[in-house]
Amino acid sequence: MTDAATPRPDETYSYLGPAGTFTEAALKQVPEAAGKHWRSVNNVGEALADVLAGRSTAAMIAIENSVDGGVTATQDALATVPGLRIVGEYLVPVNFVLVARPGTRLDEVRVVNAHPVAYAQSRGWLERHLPDHGHIPATSNVQAAASLFENGLADAAVAPPGIVDHLDVDVLAESIGDNPNAMTRFVLVSRSRRIAPRTGADKTSLIVELPDDEPGSLLAMLEQFSTRGVNLSLLQSRPIGDEMGRYRFVVDLEGHVEDERVADALLGLRRFSPKVIFLGSYARADRREAQYHSKYEDDIFIEARDWLRGILSGEPEED
Amino acid sequence: MTDAATPRPDETYSYLGPAGTFTEAALKQVPEAAGKHWRSVNNVGEALADVLAGRSTAAMIAIENSVDGGVTATQDALATVPGLRIVGEYLVPVNFVLVARPGTRLDEVRVVNAHPVAYAQSRGWLERHLPDHGHIPATSNVQAAASLFENGLADAAVAPPGIVDHLDVDVLAESIGDNPNAMTRFVLVSRSRRIAPRTGADKTSLIVELPDDEPGSLLAMLEQFSTRGVNLSLLQSRPIGDEMGRYRFVVDLEGHVEDERVADALLGLRRFSPKVIFLGSYARADRREAQYHSKYEDDIFIEARDWLRGILSGEPEED
Amino acid sequence: MTDAATPRPDETYSYLGPAGTFTEAALKQVPEAAGKHWRSVNNVGEALADVLAGRSTAAMIAIENSVDGGVTATQDALATVPGLRIVGEYLVPVNFVLVARPGTRLDEVRVVNAHPVAYAQSRGWLERHLPDHGHIPATSNVQAAASLFENGLADAAVAPPGIVDHLDVDVLAESIGDNPNAMTRFVLVSRSRRIAPRTGADKTSLIVELPDDEPGSLLAMLEQFSTRGVNLSLLQSRPIGDEMGRYRFVVDLEGHVEDERVADALLGLRRFSPKVIFLGSYARADRREAQYHSKYEDDIFIEARDWLRGILSGEPEED
Amino acid sequence: MTDAATPRPDETYSYLGPAGTFTEAALKQVPEAAGKHWRSVNNVGEALADVLAGRSTAAMIAIENSVDGGVTATQDALATVPGLRIVGEYLVPVNFVLVARPGTRLDEVRVVNAHPVAYAQSRGWLERHLPDHGHIPATSNVQAAASLFENGLADAAVAPPGIVDHLDVDVLAESIGDNPNAMTRFVLVSRSRRIAPRTGADKTSLIVELPDDEPGSLLAMLEQFSTRGVNLSLLQSRPIGDEMGRYRFVVDLEGHVEDERVADALLGLRRFSPKVIFLGSYARADRREAQYHSKYEDDIFIEARDWLRGILSGEPEED
Repeated sequence: MTDAATPRPDETYSYLGPAGTFTEAALKQVPEAAGKHWRSVNNVGEALADVLAGRSTAAMIAIENSVDGGVTATQDALATVPGLRIVGEYLVPVNFVLVARPGTRLDEVRVVNAHPVAYAQSRGWLERHLPDHGHIPATSNVQAAASLFENGLADAAVAPPGIVDHLDVDVLAESIGDNPNAMTRFVLVSRSRRIAPRTGADKTSLIVELPDDEPGSLLAMLEQFSTRGVNLSLLQSRPIGDEMGRYRFVVDLEGHVEDERVADALLGLRRFSPKVIFLGSYARADRREAQYHSKYEDDIFIEARDWLRGILSGEPEED
Repeated sequence: MTDAATPRPDETYSYLGPAGTFTEAALKQVPEAAGKHWRSVNNVGEALADVLAGRSTAAMIAIENSVDGGVTATQDALATVPGLRIVGEYLVPVNFVLVARPGTRLDEVRVVNAHPVAYAQSRGWLERHLPDHGHIPATSNVQAAASLFENGLADAAVAPPGIVDHLDVDVLAESIGDNPNAMTRFVLVSRSRRIAPRTGADKTSLIVELPDDEPGSLLAMLEQFSTRGVNLSLLQSRPIGDEMGRYRFVVDLEGHVEDERVADALLGLRRFSPKVIFLGSYARADRREAQYHSKYEDDIFIEARDWLRGILSGEPEED
Repeated sequence: MTDAATPRPDETYSYLGPAGTFTEAALKQVPEAAGKHWRSVNNVGEALADVLAGRSTAAMIAIENSVDGGVTATQDALATVPGLRIVGEYLVPVNFVLVARPGTRLDEVRVVNAHPVAYAQSRGWLERHLPDHGHIPATSNVQAAASLFENGLADAAVAPPGIVDHLDVDVLAESIGDNPNAMTRFVLVSRSRRIAPRTGADKTSLIVELPDDEPGSLLAMLEQFSTRGVNLSLLQSRPIGDEMGRYRFVVDLEGHVEDERVADALLGLRRFSPKVIFLGSYARADRREAQYHSKYEDDIFIEARDWLRGILSGEPEED
Repeated sequence: MTDAATPRPDETYSYLGPAGTFTEAALKQVPEAAGKHWRSVNNVGEALADVLAGRSTAAMIAIENSVDGGVTATQDALATVPGLRIVGEYLVPVNFVLVARPGTRLDEVRVVNAHPVAYAQSRGWLERHLPDHGHIPATSNVQAAASLFENGLADAAVAPPGIVDHLDVDVLAESIGDNPNAMTRFVLVSRSRRIAPRTGADKTSLIVELPDDEPGSLLAMLEQFSTRGVNLSLLQSRPIGDEMGRYRFVVDLEGHVEDERVADALLGLRRFSPKVIFLGSYARADRREAQYHSKYEDDIFIEARDWLRGILSGEPEED
């Protein structure tokens, strides 16, 4: 295969646009993307289609929000679209400003345009300061602000702070998000099968289906990790979609596929599960080193293999 | 306490309206609601607020979709709003029609108004038949159709089949949902603390937080169920919201709190977890009986208690 | 039933005699036995028969040796003879002297009389100092020495240090046991069903059979303890005896049946196992307090029961 | 190394003698031993010393009795003497006859000579038919009968049925063992490190120590087997001997070290345990095939390794 990650003069990165979105802020954290062509798209599906079709080297997509949880469209796309790999993780603090057309005063605001997630995250502020407001949903945070100039339906919009670089709006209020520590987690997705190098502070992402007919199979899946000292940072169930009550699991684990304990857990998982999708090993955005007991260090695994090899070969065992 | 479930002449049921929504279809399945006042509200928050304030006896709210998964707004509301109980479960098949103002032809449709969930579930059909359409999001499936008469922005709307009873629209296409078996699961929520009687085909819903600092605590939580033969029909993680990586779990288990094995699992869970919310035991919508090994029958629990009581009392043990 | 533990003027204690055995040393540690009638018997079977027939209040029997392991005759008797309870535990340091008829010199010793267990524990010394000796087995440690005066077969005997109080022998060598820290653990067995009071440093002894046809049933048994934070100090398999490969388990756990975590583990065990024999809760000989995580304290169990009771009664829950 | 198992003209097999013992009956089941030199020894220690010193090719030793349980001297020797391997397993039905000097009548018997294990297994018969008998212990079953001609202390002896081929005795009663199905399990032990070929009906024997300071470490050890579908046919604790309460485990598992599931379990065990001794894989005496779920078949393990290798190499994954 040709490796889509090889730098090319015409490299393109897709992201949920337009300019000013949190997704764009995430893409700005990627050194390799600097100076390359950035392609603004309307949704996760388009972003991944760009990657699959080879129009883009990689796509930046939101995967989890500290307040709202997993971005289910992204999780479902990664579970069902074959050939994709996560190659990096990025965190963007999420906060919002209330903006309006120039000259608008806060007490004149009747209707607010906002992406539903942003609306949910600033509802507390809105209910305190604009108790009688109406809400019009938008398809992105930037689009919410842009709509102010497209029709007269809304008087104000909930938008990312960076919006002022792109649109001629007045900021009526800052930091209107209900949770000051809200973050969104993004991943950079490509078709490359080359594994990012181990850093000691890595994550590995998987999609796992459980054997059908076995009660306790979730427990058995988790034991594959716990018996190798592998911690999970995310475990989320998603409906497979064919019938009520059938789920697949989105799993993020602490460590890299080249860590012995992780590789062994993946072997156990693959044997156990009817379907495991390896989505990639990559450096964590928060650079926090994986925590595990010393009994799960690489040396322990290597020594055990040597010991077993000695037994199978019939050579004398040294204790 | 005053029991909010006591029948009153002026009983009210809240639901996501307007008339014609799938939520209304769920409420039509409730015998006790027949002939009572039905109050149409705009979102889950309003529905639960009606219940808490005593304006309504109960509220019907969507909690899970077989294609999109858990309705996170509902799950988060049940986890954070105290004093609520689930008293019934209802399943509604989910399918969609494409409707337009009378006289509109399919080939004239440029822009489609649709609730984001409905849009996601009929995107396959829309992309095949209207490859160049635009999308305007609506706050409910009925509102999507109603908007056709409010402004000229959209030419057609994705709506529930029952919409033709309420609006003067033409149906341009039927069964446009991508999954013909799609279902939405609804729950009826009230303030009553009276437990619904055991039927043998029951569910119990819980919200569980895990101890902070313990790796493997999810495994330990699941063992509380597995060691008592209690199967889970739903396990979903939701961010607690204070920081990235902290989750609570939405759990549906097979059985009733008056089943000995369930009661014992709840005891184990309560001892283990820093926070358990009991959301209710109620008859399953699908009337499927709980499956469990005979070693977890009530008699086994009762006999063991008698045996231990004999030991503690110093009376002779019979084997 | 009449309670055999009620003090009576004519109380009798059975023990493996004659005077001078380690068993007698164990019985000397029992304050209640001081000044009562002590009955010397020849083996565990006789001692337990005395208790069952009411001839003795209690019997002191060896149950485990730190070098040789469980005393299987005792373990099997407790597993198969109904109506017995362990009411106390005692530790006796085990060491041996080599004794002979007065006037004998070490270099004259050709044949050594010794109980097989004592012989095994002093074989290192014997092989170093008497490399060419022969061995005649005895039925008890004291009998080994007594045999020196009964026939001329042996020249010396392995015996407990206290033998010099009972027989006119010369000590040829002291501390001939191979392990200077060797201990034997004894238990006092009675028919009383009254449970000894909790001391905080208790043990509970059980005999447990596993369900027949289930692989992993030992694991399931151990989980009954681990999920309640109950540590085991002994787990020993013993053949049931009907066919090769069927075992029962002798279990000593840390804690008292009146400890909530222990009581709950016993309930779980009783539900799980086709046969559980409760052999008693009693103060540990080493007075070491039970170690367990604070999450398994009595209060946690009591609070959880109160919480569940509130749910079942329909009363408002306070969090 | 020199391979002690290489056939030599002067091959020797050690066994607990003299001729007529059950151990000799076990050795008669070994085709390779036919026509070779058989060396009768007095105990397990001597038999193993012969093997270690190269005086014998192999030694037949008793390891478990269906009534009395593990032969602890053998288990402890295998755990502490380095360099030994089990190369075969043999079952011998255990029954006893009561024999006496020619002309003796049953009603003349006052004192019975018997090996303690044999005595324990025929005590029921002896108490019914000779309620007033005395007991003199012997070092082997054959020695019990031989003693009848060495001194006048006993009138009769408990002996194996084969005794009549070796000594001029009268049989006073047959089948006096309390359990008609009693069996003893023997193992053939050598210094060879060559693994016996897989037969599909194999056993693997191990000695395992647990990590010191970890409660639940026995559970963790058992999970190494259960998560690979490996059943245990024996799990026996033995004191390490240094202090009360420290144990090692004697483990027999179903399967061969060349079975993928067994090899993987051994790797897990080695990583987990401070000390694992591999005692050998060998054909079961009862020829019963190992039972395990198809998900633990060799192919599953091999396929998972191929899958992981593909991921690590960066090659495209096929699902």
